[in-house]
Amino acid sequence: MSERAPETTNGGTEQRLLEAAGEIFAEHGYRNATVRQICEKAKANLAAINYHFGDKDGLYLAVLRHLNKVRSERNPINKGLSSQATAEQKLRAFISALLHRILDEDSPDWHMKLCSREMIEPTRALDTMVEESVRPLERELESIVRELLGPAADNQRVRLSALSIVGQCVFYHHCRSIISRLFPREKYGSPESIDILVEHVTRFSLAALGNMAKQNKPKAR
Amino acid sequence: MSERAPETTNGGTEQRLLEAAGEIFAEHGYRNATVRQICEKAKANLAAINYHFGDKDGLYLAVLRHLNKVRSERNPINKGLSSQATAEQKLRAFISALLHRILDEDSPDWHMKLCSREMIEPTRALDTMVEESVRPLERELESIVRELLGPAADNQRVRLSALSIVGQCVFYHHCRSIISRLFPREKYGSPESIDILVEHVTRFSLAALGNMAKQNKPKAR
Repeated sequence: MSERAPETTNGGTEQRLLEAAGEIFAEHGYRNATVRQICEKAKANLAAINYHFGDKDGLYLAVLRHLNKVRSERNPINKGLSSQATAEQKLRAFISALLHRILDEDSPDWHMKLCSREMIEPTRALDTMVEESVRPLERELESIVRELLGPAADNQRVRLSALSIVGQCVFYHHCRSIISRLFPREKYGSPESIDILVEHVTRFSLAALGNMAKQNKPKAR
Repeated sequence: MSERAPETTNGGTEQRLLEAAGEIFAEHGYRNATVRQICEKAKANLAAINYHFGDKDGLYLAVLRHLNKVRSERNPINKGLSSQATAEQKLRAFISALLHRILDEDSPDWHMKLCSREMIEPTRALDTMVEESVRPLERELESIVRELLGPAADNQRVRLSALSIVGQCVFYHHCRSIISRLFPREKYGSPESIDILVEHVTRFSLAALGNMAKQNKPKAR
């Protein structure tokens, strides 16, 4: 950061580079994308990348952070919750935020394409993103699930139940090409259907956790 | 199929072509892979592809069918079930088959890589595969879920509940790069952990369906 800002740098260059890089990385993958392509698309020069992001690695990580920031600011996981919210209300809000983040149609196409690429061919940036963004969400969900399962539930059950909830949601992203072919009229995964999905995943998960909590309770002698 | 079998064709050529094509398609994607690359890898000539598969499209569809055949023969969904099996037993067997198919470590790497590619950038072959292979599985699962939810459940609830079950399973494939970073010691998704996952997904799903069935029952007056 001791370098002088190149002349092309202005308020918009960093933003333009992030958007251009996101599209190029999503299209060609981290390894095949070149900074030259990104500069051309952003109408910026190499010095601007170096100044703002250090190198290609730094730019890539900045793109993932940017993407995550946009999506999580638009759909915070505690949206509309009061401080006295019950665990049931917290679970519904969590599922709603997750499904909205995944199925947000207003986001540029490259967002989810880049996420999919990172799932199949992870880069080093994924280690950072998991610690910064995924682990806090996982902890939050585990604490809600623990409350719903009750004190008798062991850590493994809490963790696997949290994963069962996330799995039901992210399915509508990863398997959308199959779901849309299986049920072309249902439009599962479309923005109009988000409310239906939030209601269903919440109901299915609360039913599971409630029943398991009951099974866990020590029987009265 | 009126063409004469080319001289290189023998019992093993078709098989070699399927395996070579699977690897090349998984590596480069359907669009970028060339039949020349596949011929070189399989040590076969273009006439052999034409004879056995018609063209690149035909070869690609044959690869997907081959992959599906191998995985479903190894893990049939009614494995070990008697004709008097209960819906609970059928659900467990279904979940077990699905998780084993997804997490089968003895399958070549290209199997799941090719499936992932097809999810992100579907080809026309996916339409065929969904009708031939996915829809029958979905119908089977819906019929098990319908039995467990009882007659009061509507079609949408049955369908979404079936998707909730599949979502919990395929999650361990699609999100394995995140899961392995979140819980490096747990080895979720590894073959050793399959039994734990089968037990958990079955228990979570049965708890959900059982509780929802109870909520659906008309109350006695």
